[in-house]
Amino acid sequence: MLFTIFGATGDLTTKKLIPALYNLYFEEQMPRNFMVICIGRRSYPEDTFVKEVFSKLDGHFENWDMFKTHLHYFEMDFSNPEDYSGFSDFVEALPIQNYGEKIFYLATAPRFFPIIAKALIDHQLIERDDLREKIVFEKPFGENLESAKAYNKLLLEAIDESQVYRIDHYLGKEMLQNILMVRFANKIFENIWNDENIESVKIYALESETVKQRGGYYDSSGALKDMVQNHLFQTLALVAMEPPRGLNDRLVKDEKVRALDRIRVCDEIVYGQYSGYLDEKDIPSNSKTETFVGLKVFVDSPRWKETPFYLVTGKKMGQKRAGIVITFKNASCFFEKGQPQKNKLTIEIFPREGIVLQFNGKAPGLQAYTMPMKMDYCHMCNVIGNSPEAYEKLISDVIHDDASLFTRWDEIESAWRTVDQLVRDKKNEPLTIYENENEILEVLFSKWKERLFD
Amino acid sequence: MLFTIFGATGDLTTKKLIPALYNLYFEEQMPRNFMVICIGRRSYPEDTFVKEVFSKLDGHFENWDMFKTHLHYFEMDFSNPEDYSGFSDFVEALPIQNYGEKIFYLATAPRFFPIIAKALIDHQLIERDDLREKIVFEKPFGENLESAKAYNKLLLEAIDESQVYRIDHYLGKEMLQNILMVRFANKIFENIWNDENIESVKIYALESETVKQRGGYYDSSGALKDMVQNHLFQTLALVAMEPPRGLNDRLVKDEKVRALDRIRVCDEIVYGQYSGYLDEKDIPSNSKTETFVGLKVFVDSPRWKETPFYLVTGKKMGQKRAGIVITFKNASCFFEKGQPQKNKLTIEIFPREGIVLQFNGKAPGLQAYTMPMKMDYCHMCNVIGNSPEAYEKLISDVIHDDASLFTRWDEIESAWRTVDQLVRDKKNEPLTIYENENEILEVLFSKWKERLFD
Repeated sequence: MLFTIFGATGDLTTKKLIPALYNLYFEEQMPRNFMVICIGRRSYPEDTFVKEVFSKLDGHFENWDMFKTHLHYFEMDFSNPEDYSGFSDFVEALPIQNYGEKIFYLATAPRFFPIIAKALIDHQLIERDDLREKIVFEKPFGENLESAKAYNKLLLEAIDESQVYRIDHYLGKEMLQNILMVRFANKIFENIWNDENIESVKIYALESETVKQRGGYYDSSGALKDMVQNHLFQTLALVAMEPPRGLNDRLVKDEKVRALDRIRVCDEIVYGQYSGYLDEKDIPSNSKTETFVGLKVFVDSPRWKETPFYLVTGKKMGQKRAGIVITFKNASCFFEKGQPQKNKLTIEIFPREGIVLQFNGKAPGLQAYTMPMKMDYCHMCNVIGNSPEAYEKLISDVIHDDASLFTRWDEIESAWRTVDQLVRDKKNEPLTIYENENEILEVLFSKWKERLFD
Repeated sequence: MLFTIFGATGDLTTKKLIPALYNLYFEEQMPRNFMVICIGRRSYPEDTFVKEVFSKLDGHFENWDMFKTHLHYFEMDFSNPEDYSGFSDFVEALPIQNYGEKIFYLATAPRFFPIIAKALIDHQLIERDDLREKIVFEKPFGENLESAKAYNKLLLEAIDESQVYRIDHYLGKEMLQNILMVRFANKIFENIWNDENIESVKIYALESETVKQRGGYYDSSGALKDMVQNHLFQTLALVAMEPPRGLNDRLVKDEKVRALDRIRVCDEIVYGQYSGYLDEKDIPSNSKTETFVGLKVFVDSPRWKETPFYLVTGKKMGQKRAGIVITFKNASCFFEKGQPQKNKLTIEIFPREGIVLQFNGKAPGLQAYTMPMKMDYCHMCNVIGNSPEAYEKLISDVIHDDASLFTRWDEIESAWRTVDQLVRDKKNEPLTIYENENEILEVLFSKWKERLFD
């Protein structure tokens, strides 16, 4: 396997890709022969590059010396189509028959994606007639519906959809994969997963970080394009989709697209920008880009007619925290001593991976009061080792031709359609400057009369 | 309050009643003025009796000296109606206006219940026109439908139903009280509590003990009358009843009776007798009394048409263990990598009090396998102190005129009707002699093709 990383000097490579490849290698999930070609614009002697990668790794890499023999550095300007002849020559000179798969992983800034893809196609580094040649795109795929379409056309004129892997690393997370299991492997949830029983669904992905060095990209994107279009809509699709005829890739995606197509945005939207954003590197001083968004949407299907879905994401939110809260309606029974609290099913995505069910039981003691109780399942607590990182799962799936956890073109298309409309309407919406998460969550509450967290 | 215990030299008094009264006293759940009159046939100086009670107590009774001043011993032959004049004189001589409530607690062998009740009525120690006079019966209430009816007639000719408390101490247990809370305070269970979702219900009450000194009573009773008629049928009624219009005593009992009336016994019954039973004290050498019974019943209502209820109870079962297992059906979704296990909701009654929900999630790791997970709620783990003993709750309820956890006459009547029929048919059923619990549970399995425990 030849695993080529474009943008190998970036954070994603050292934080996610190299550790994932390292783990897969020692878990024997990798082909015997593999070479990782790291492409960057900077001039490095190979061993300097390898040393620098190692110095940036975070964690235990005891067998690094064994792994690093598979790492190679190739210097080129991947934004310049003319530089690809050299790369092509380099690849051709390799004893490629020993490698089998060719995987091109685009970990660059999104604006380079079409350039790199076109160059790879033009130089026949990836061709339709060899399905072992694959190209992996980091999100976002396109900057809006139009550019995504153009971009997709470019690809599909030259190669097959099955060679294209559009990453949404959220889908690689254990708890995202768990949504379908929870929904479809449990009789207890099967018949109550609808607006007759579920009062609301909250999906949140809060980040503590600011835009840091990524201001250039972020300012042209904002929370809607950076988080909602992909992670939050994908999560919503998994929660809201109709049961598929079977759990295979195609059938699941068919239903996800149907759910995405039915998203209807309410006008109860809150946009925010953290105080200090305008002083960040590469941010125009009059930027109106949102670093926070709270969306209330409905899914226009018979199942969900009455149930609002609240989607919340933001930067500088004091904590990194992601999850899904399914709040059930009140029980029908009338309780003289006060109505019990609502049942809640929480799927915790980060930092803890777990499932918590809040239900009501009898408060211990002589009185017949109800009391909310929590039943808790911790996803990793009983397992030795770590939960595989999303990237480990996703790379392993690319190798094994499993596209289940990658987004199909029609999913992207549907999500862009909704987000494009939101972006168009955003101009007329107020933008709240927030000092901290409490401030902006209060604004949310005053709009929705519904707290994100109890 | 005057609290009179008939049969005060028996085990129930020292094991349950005195500790319950002691706890209620120090929890300030008792009226300020109270006197406990302990009636027995043996001749004791009062302080010898009090000392003997103390010596038999099991646990911490640090403030015994304060409590014991309320204890009195009265010697009489409560099986002899003529002895009641003396008791009546004794009670009359008390400054009764200071006491208010008069509670007569019948903790004797069941055959004395009608004698004592009649004598109390005849001597006007309990009268219809003072509702603060109450009589409490230990189970079983009657030996069959006929005797229970006669017995009830005797009572209700002289006093009001509201003065009669028929104890089924099972109903005082925290987890039995929890059944209604779990069912009716939780939206998640409301719509799945039926045969469309629930595959089977198992209710079990296993005892490790043999009949010990109670052979005389037990041999004329057997597991059907000693356990099924009361504890197991009451538990079944709570699980199977229709949602009442409100959670008050009368409405709940109305629905319980309707459920009890609809019990239909299948012929897949297993009767057992532990090996060695015939050598126990007071057991006839040819006794056919069952010390184990496994019943499969249906509840003939639209809700439960397809769901079998398995009731299992026995002595010498290797462990004392009681609980309810609600097994849900398979999820509808087809899983290529093997069907997930069935969901299970277990209500643990003894020795642990808790609720365990077994559901399916994703097995951690790179593969998309489902794995059964347990979510667990431990009823007492987060609470300081002990779960109140059933008897503490029940005595407190008698004091406060709350009959919710006592069985109403029509419940008893309905239960006896079914058990009488079972007793009549039992003659034709084989009786399996078992050395240990595994043997008899194997017989059960061969009949039902369904294991009591996984």
